[in-house]
Amino acid sequence: MSDTPLLPLAEARRPLYAGIDLGGTNIKSALVDDEGRLLAFHTQPTHADRGPEDTAARMGRTVHVLAAEAGIAAGDIARVGLGTPGPQDLQAGLILRAGNLPGWDNFPVRDRVAAHCGREVTYANDANAAAYGEFWVGSGQEYSSLILLTLGTGVGGGIIIGDTNVEGAHSHGSECGHIIVDTSPTARTCPFGHSGDLEAYASATALKARARQALAAGATGSLAAAVAAGADVTPILIAREMEAGDALASELILEVARWLGIGIVTLMHTIDPAAVILGGAMTFGGDASPVGRAFIDRVRAEVRARAFPVLAEKTVIRFASLGNAAGSIGAAGLARLAARR
Amino acid sequence: MSDTPLLPLAEARRPLYAGIDLGGTNIKSALVDDEGRLLAFHTQPTHADRGPEDTAARMGRTVHVLAAEAGIAAGDIARVGLGTPGPQDLQAGLILRAGNLPGWDNFPVRDRVAAHCGREVTYANDANAAAYGEFWVGSGQEYSSLILLTLGTGVGGGIIIGDTNVEGAHSHGSECGHIIVDTSPTARTCPFGHSGDLEAYASATALKARARQALAAGATGSLAAAVAAGADVTPILIAREMEAGDALASELILEVARWLGIGIVTLMHTIDPAAVILGGAMTFGGDASPVGRAFIDRVRAEVRARAFPVLAEKTVIRFASLGNAAGSIGAAGLARLAARR
Repeated sequence: MSDTPLLPLAEARRPLYAGIDLGGTNIKSALVDDEGRLLAFHTQPTHADRGPEDTAARMGRTVHVLAAEAGIAAGDIARVGLGTPGPQDLQAGLILRAGNLPGWDNFPVRDRVAAHCGREVTYANDANAAAYGEFWVGSGQEYSSLILLTLGTGVGGGIIIGDTNVEGAHSHGSECGHIIVDTSPTARTCPFGHSGDLEAYASATALKARARQALAAGATGSLAAAVAAGADVTPILIAREMEAGDALASELILEVARWLGIGIVTLMHTIDPAAVILGGAMTFGGDASPVGRAFIDRVRAEVRARAFPVLAEKTVIRFASLGNAAGSIGAAGLARLAARR
Repeated sequence: MSDTPLLPLAEARRPLYAGIDLGGTNIKSALVDDEGRLLAFHTQPTHADRGPEDTAARMGRTVHVLAAEAGIAAGDIARVGLGTPGPQDLQAGLILRAGNLPGWDNFPVRDRVAAHCGREVTYANDANAAAYGEFWVGSGQEYSSLILLTLGTGVGGGIIIGDTNVEGAHSHGSECGHIIVDTSPTARTCPFGHSGDLEAYASATALKARARQALAAGATGSLAAAVAAGADVTPILIAREMEAGDALASELILEVARWLGIGIVTLMHTIDPAAVILGGAMTFGGDASPVGRAFIDRVRAEVRARAFPVLAEKTVIRFASLGNAAGSIGAAGLARLAARR
């Protein structure tokens, strides 16, 4: 997405909005016009180890950097959106305790960023912001509602129904990685300790654990050979070996797809969205890759087998399109929604 | 609810709204004021066997009956709400094919009722309408969002987030009975053929099947004795025997509660509502009964064991309060929402 051509300022439709997407590794920020078109995009390291106030100051300055890049004054930005990992208190503007931001407990991130950039800040969950980005100008822009599942180290979720971002009564809405898919006694557990939830089956962490388990049990083939030769067990390696025809790699990736399909049926029977959008590294290259295509086909097959027929027929299941800019563009979009209310 | 004192017309705050709740056995209808207070309530048999047009005509006349009972003209009713079972096409106003309304395929119920009552009709799913009733003036009226689970022959669901009734992109929103709770090879199946969904575990149908299975396997005790003496296996009988101390009856009912708790955790991690409300015959007398209290305590215990701690602590789980009037009052409330847009 960062290689998308930027909109020339002369063509921008005002008001303009900035969005900031705080991750454990990088901070991504975007300046967009009233139609969600990118005027500037920026990535910098989070440096979470320098403490939250340092990072908040740099997030605040990012707004000025984006303005300078686009050739406008910071005052021309109507409002700023900020998405961060949870758990958080959205009403109070707090990061309560973020797993990948050690030492950030109860940090008033919304107000500190606002102080540093001098603009009002709309605060959201990062996965919900990404969902809003895909809904506004991405893969879901044709649809009246969507669920975005972001398949990475964990499984993030965002639910958008019209102008409603399902953020929840206690800032835990759309935590779709934590819906329960397995209640058997052998159910696996996610890093939060939840037994049998989707994240325990459809995250990169889960895929790697399953691969290591199969290899330790003596599985053979090209994946086993690569790992024996010293390769790290990663989703990229497993996808490459699936593409090369390795049976274990294929089984592992399609098992993820099967569990994902089960989770998606539960979400479809709860929300009945117009579209379910899949993003993140665990989409294996998406439509451009045979592995990505086999993956989403297996998801769709599981949905067909389990969902109400009308939903299996009509609900669109497709890949996300905004890549790593979804969260920042979506945060800007949520700022726009808040400004228009 | 039908024995709730009715509001005198002089105290009513206008506009007034009527709501109709079409069930397989009865049609319930309510006239309410702008604050959801009952001015008239009416029940009549559905007589589905007489065909949809006959029933639609009687539903239309009901609006006039309610008006006459309250001493107003039908023209004083601002709008009419109608809730029916699914599957339906809400946009088109059609009942597509209702399991308990044989021969009603693709019936344009919204427009036929409107033609017979002479008022504009807002069309909803019956379980969503009941959820809106509890949200507006019932057990959920203090909360910003709620999920209502109606535990009867099947498991119905309604999700209300502020003014948003989650009816779905294809009229299948809030079908919470069909979220998946069991993916094991021995998973049970609901009447729609879905493997391992909540309805296969937490409906009266499921409870009766489980009881018969246990009795056939040779279970003993007072429930077994009652059935051997000719009693029908019903939720009421099982609850009575649980209250009398029968171990099997207790195990059966608490097992329903356990599965329900699992389903509720999935819904909490998707919607994060302020409250989860339980209604229907399978609440076993609710707070007034030791069985109802043991049931909901078991639900809460399962939620505590599985949900994010902040949600387990803060999400209210309680019984519904509007009884069999929830659907008609809620349909009137949705008509009010539509009229105010």
